[in-house]
Amino acid sequence: MENIFTAPARVIKITSKDFADMDDQLVIEEPLEIQLQYGRAENRVQKSISVTMRTPGHDIELAAGFLFTEGIIRRATDILFVEQERPDNNKLLFALEDNVVPGIQKAERNFYTTSSCGVCGKSSIDAIKTVSFYKNAKQDCQLKAEMFYELQDNLKIRQPVFETTGGIHASALFDLEGNFIMAREDVGRHNALDKVIGASLLNDELPLTNTVLLLSGRASFELIQKASMAGIKVVAAVGAPSSLAVELAKESNITLLGFLRNERFNVYSCEERIML
Amino acid sequence: MENIFTAPARVIKITSKDFADMDDQLVIEEPLEIQLQYGRAENRVQKSISVTMRTPGHDIELAAGFLFTEGIIRRATDILFVEQERPDNNKLLFALEDNVVPGIQKAERNFYTTSSCGVCGKSSIDAIKTVSFYKNAKQDCQLKAEMFYELQDNLKIRQPVFETTGGIHASALFDLEGNFIMAREDVGRHNALDKVIGASLLNDELPLTNTVLLLSGRASFELIQKASMAGIKVVAAVGAPSSLAVELAKESNITLLGFLRNERFNVYSCEERIML
Repeated sequence: MENIFTAPARVIKITSKDFADMDDQLVIEEPLEIQLQYGRAENRVQKSISVTMRTPGHDIELAAGFLFTEGIIRRATDILFVEQERPDNNKLLFALEDNVVPGIQKAERNFYTTSSCGVCGKSSIDAIKTVSFYKNAKQDCQLKAEMFYELQDNLKIRQPVFETTGGIHASALFDLEGNFIMAREDVGRHNALDKVIGASLLNDELPLTNTVLLLSGRASFELIQKASMAGIKVVAAVGAPSSLAVELAKESNITLLGFLRNERFNVYSCEERIML
Repeated sequence: MENIFTAPARVIKITSKDFADMDDQLVIEEPLEIQLQYGRAENRVQKSISVTMRTPGHDIELAAGFLFTEGIIRRATDILFVEQERPDNNKLLFALEDNVVPGIQKAERNFYTTSSCGVCGKSSIDAIKTVSFYKNAKQDCQLKAEMFYELQDNLKIRQPVFETTGGIHASALFDLEGNFIMAREDVGRHNALDKVIGASLLNDELPLTNTVLLLSGRASFELIQKASMAGIKVVAAVGAPSSLAVELAKESNITLLGFLRNERFNVYSCEERIML
């Protein structure tokens, strides 16, 4: 199978019995540079914010999601226009309305700190975390455990690239009954989630209060942070969560599931939302 | 099992039949800020280079490997001293000898570009790649295919954390006969490899010419780039490689294997080194 996310490759498949030259498909990985233009009149500046390795496709959603979850922009209407450099598409310019002050200090602190910042001890989460505009109530909905068993099958139908390459991650949104809403794929876990959140931002669908987020891999601190920024309150990961992911999920009143496989899963936080 | 890489957690395990409150272990994820001090006398400056989410342990190796593979330092003797902030250990200062000019422009271009940089089309790899001091010859050793079948079992014996948490990556070095040399683990794939390369740098063992690198997950562009910086010429990944990883492996004369599972694997580049 060939599609826009994969590239053909020649590969030698070796087993203990034989070897063979074969055609294969690789997931495409390309750099995307995100540039920001902002400010008023003669003080208007343009600068590069990030270079991310991503799977091309849904680039504008990816960049919008990245800028939003990093606290650099706050809403879709902050964006004046977007320009993607042709023909290669690897550079994307987001021009902001002239009255918008982008939250760049925060982003610089996260990625590339230019002055002393307190990443230490008790304050470590505070130092690196972005602050969500949305607050989750502790107990606000009740979800059936069985609902989660279906999510992965629903996603697999819609994630053909993984079957082809084994090398891509997916983020998918479902409603609280488990009905599929949307999914995005990328070689990078964070990018797949940024694409989902960016699409929601551009469609004016934030906060994603009444959705369940399915992650095809592990749950890291940064993924939970992005979910929190988008107002998501239920996250189900196919893989393991990290210690800091669980800590942030508890603090943000996010129900975090891990090891969602077949008819079983673990709950790490806010289990009040799951009907047992 | 408890160890320095994991933290205990309470978890609810849910299946279609029942549910139970249990003790579990989570892989620890904590931020590490790397600061650099460099320059002469009154021009000496100190600045933060990166904040990475990592599993604590081998932090100095991690930071040394990061600084080396990003082209910021060139050798262990560039380092004057290292200071880790107590008691939380989440901030690490690398002070460089006063005659060392760190390759920070390159790092800034990679992580956080402050001026226009040409990430576009044909030049995209050039724009983001660091340049290795080591060049691989195209055909310089011959490895038995069977040798690779043992690597994962050898690693599993030495990677107890994955069994406990399911949430950690490993990078491991073997000699050309498949004998285990060393392994490092981390919640992040790049960190695990930086720890291996950093340890080798600090032990004055670079270039890693006569080694095979085993990656517990997928092979991305950045991982192949780091391997190339360390002079590694054979990389075997348990998961899938990306398109750009294969492209860089070919360009750097690195033999890249993927999907190494049981007694089979795929070869994506420089197959001349594999005896069939």
